[in-house]
Amino acid sequence: MNNVKRVDHVAIVVEDIEAALGFWRDGLGLEVTHVEDVPDQESVVAFLPTGDSEVELVKPTSTASGVARFLTRRGPGIHHICFEVSDLSYYLQRLKDLGVRLIHTEPVIGTAGKKIAFIHPESTHGVLVELYELTRQEPEIRLARARTLSDRVVGESQVMMAGVLGFLRALRDGRPPRARRSAVIEPPG
Amino acid sequence: MNNVKRVDHVAIVVEDIEAALGFWRDGLGLEVTHVEDVPDQESVVAFLPTGDSEVELVKPTSTASGVARFLTRRGPGIHHICFEVSDLSYYLQRLKDLGVRLIHTEPVIGTAGKKIAFIHPESTHGVLVELYELTRQEPEIRLARARTLSDRVVGESQVMMAGVLGFLRALRDGRPPRARRSAVIEPPG
Repeated sequence: MNNVKRVDHVAIVVEDIEAALGFWRDGLGLEVTHVEDVPDQESVVAFLPTGDSEVELVKPTSTASGVARFLTRRGPGIHHICFEVSDLSYYLQRLKDLGVRLIHTEPVIGTAGKKIAFIHPESTHGVLVELYELTRQEPEIRLARARTLSDRVVGESQVMMAGVLGFLRALRDGRPPRARRSAVIEPPG
Repeated sequence: MNNVKRVDHVAIVVEDIEAALGFWRDGLGLEVTHVEDVPDQESVVAFLPTGDSEVELVKPTSTASGVARFLTRRGPGIHHICFEVSDLSYYLQRLKDLGVRLIHTEPVIGTAGKKIAFIHPESTHGVLVELYELTRQEPEIRLARARTLSDRVVGESQVMMAGVLGFLRALRDGRPPRARRSAVIEPPG
């Protein structure tokens, strides 16, 4: 059965992760599992799970990326919503057949091993939608990446250290790694 | 333990429910449990559950309401995110103590019996946040309301009929009523 399984995450673009945690962690009481540097997406992401979903706080680390321009134009706020699906290729074909405008017409494997694709807000009635499929390869890619990051992390930012430690802790505890590459792409419009 | 339990729903303001269902139901494959007329909120809401959350498509039925002005100013898109909490009063006090700007400083009981309060986007880093607490009274209020609507529904819109039927079906099946009053209040900013 091909269907949407759940809301995987809601991504919120913020100017300052620590300041945003003043509300999302200290006010709302969500737990921060880790904060991850995502250099190829030019952002830092804090992951705050609740129920079977996550809130992701995304801070651009450059001025040129999609989220950076979103932040400049619209200010902080919800950037996109991500749904987990069982079969991403099936979905992309189905949406293509319906004439839905896709940002990715084929699945993309992100840095952290996540298999994803984005749907253009033009076809969703104003919402940037990400679809995500959990693959068997994802944990392996993430572990390899975490090891590399561990090698690099000495002397680098505490943020990256926190990300790696959080990720390794999740693996050790046998939980599915909650570290999800936050999509940082062209903003809607 | 007072904490956030899950993402209850993500509310999306749309211009046309049927047109939006062309993507959210027919494209994404989400099931519409019901469509409900919410006259005191001047809107019609379609409810599409997935995992332990829901997508709500909210169409303003007047030009003066908060969602109507949101739609005019920003176009269709995500309006707010709602989290279920175990103790709403606890949360409001805690947030007040932290200096968080609240739209509702005390819990509000909505038309459908839902106990909710909204937090101003100024304090959340750009996101209109709703908190919701499930009360014992909610199913009773909803059932009473559904009965009233049933009396009124003869000769009225199919939309209202669909809402009542969906709601009664949920009650019959012993599922928690998925019909949640969609918050339709002042837009952020």
